[in-house]
Amino acid sequence: MKFAPSLQQLIDALRVLPGVGPKSAQRMAFTLLEDNHGASQLAQSIKQAQQTIQSCQTCQNYTQSAQCDICTDQTRSANGQICVVAQPQDVLSIEQTGHYHGRYFVLKGLLSPIDGIGPEELGLDKLQSQLQHGINELILATSPSVEGEATAFYLSEMAKQYNITVTRLAQGLPAGGELSALDSRTLGHAFSGRKQL
Amino acid sequence: MKFAPSLQQLIDALRVLPGVGPKSAQRMAFTLLEDNHGASQLAQSIKQAQQTIQSCQTCQNYTQSAQCDICTDQTRSANGQICVVAQPQDVLSIEQTGHYHGRYFVLKGLLSPIDGIGPEELGLDKLQSQLQHGINELILATSPSVEGEATAFYLSEMAKQYNITVTRLAQGLPAGGELSALDSRTLGHAFSGRKQL
Repeated sequence: MKFAPSLQQLIDALRVLPGVGPKSAQRMAFTLLEDNHGASQLAQSIKQAQQTIQSCQTCQNYTQSAQCDICTDQTRSANGQICVVAQPQDVLSIEQTGHYHGRYFVLKGLLSPIDGIGPEELGLDKLQSQLQHGINELILATSPSVEGEATAFYLSEMAKQYNITVTRLAQGLPAGGELSALDSRTLGHAFSGRKQL
Repeated sequence: MKFAPSLQQLIDALRVLPGVGPKSAQRMAFTLLEDNHGASQLAQSIKQAQQTIQSCQTCQNYTQSAQCDICTDQTRSANGQICVVAQPQDVLSIEQTGHYHGRYFVLKGLLSPIDGIGPEELGLDKLQSQLQHGINELILATSPSVEGEATAFYLSEMAKQYNITVTRLAQGLPAGGELSALDSRTLGHAFSGRKQL
């Protein structure tokens, strides 16, 4: 049995969403057909977001104006810190910790020469020009993956030219983690990074 | 930290999809912002489906023309069977079994007086008028829930006026089911519906 063409097209289009397989896409399509208002709202919100959301000129995070709220906040730039993250979502995660009150720089990717992603694609020239003005700490908050580490290394080399302190997020035991359930790399990092009490 | 207004609006709009919570909606919104083509495609597909998909005049299933493919297929109406299902998705499920070659009638709901869903809301008058012309079996394929059983009872009473055979899907052991894992109601139905070999 075949669905009506535009229903099938909707099912296919829903597959663009992360974590949505053929069955979920079908279920979503039927829900949208039943909920006319919600469906219109969704279609319109997608269009509006596409038209209004842009990259912040300073930090590359998503914003609706030329500069994002964090970059325009004077108190944020007062302490001269920039925290480098891979994706816009990571800004939210760090903000939720309440431990950081400086500015961010969102790479929207990680260095990966094999995929053709070099320093230009990540806007590192933009970051470099910012490092020359009143920055005293560059916090590297990329994930501890191969690409994340490579990007962190590149950035630390870049920052050294300007005598800027470069720090990297600590690696070790996750909160509430059972020692027996940890992989040996994490436990190894926790061991070598142990602190005196 | 707050998202840009139209990004937040997109996240909220995505919550209309079934099984999408706040976290998934965020992830989906970011994916859509990164995939401009896919996002446009999705917005357009929603609009197009809303504009072109309608209810089949005969069976109420979703279709792009006045009558759906199954209702226009002469071989489907030849055996004089109508299978009544609650939702359009159920048509697909039954088609996939390959056990049925008659027509359908899609209620798009079940009788539920407490929610104000009566026979008119389900289009049962439309079904009743069809029962008068060459139908010899009405197959009730609503689910074995309270509303499903109530709807099946109502339909069977209706069909009796026209001397039509009314059947209900068998209840019993699911394929591959372990006896020990079954609830007692299902096992009870399987017992009382046992067949001689």
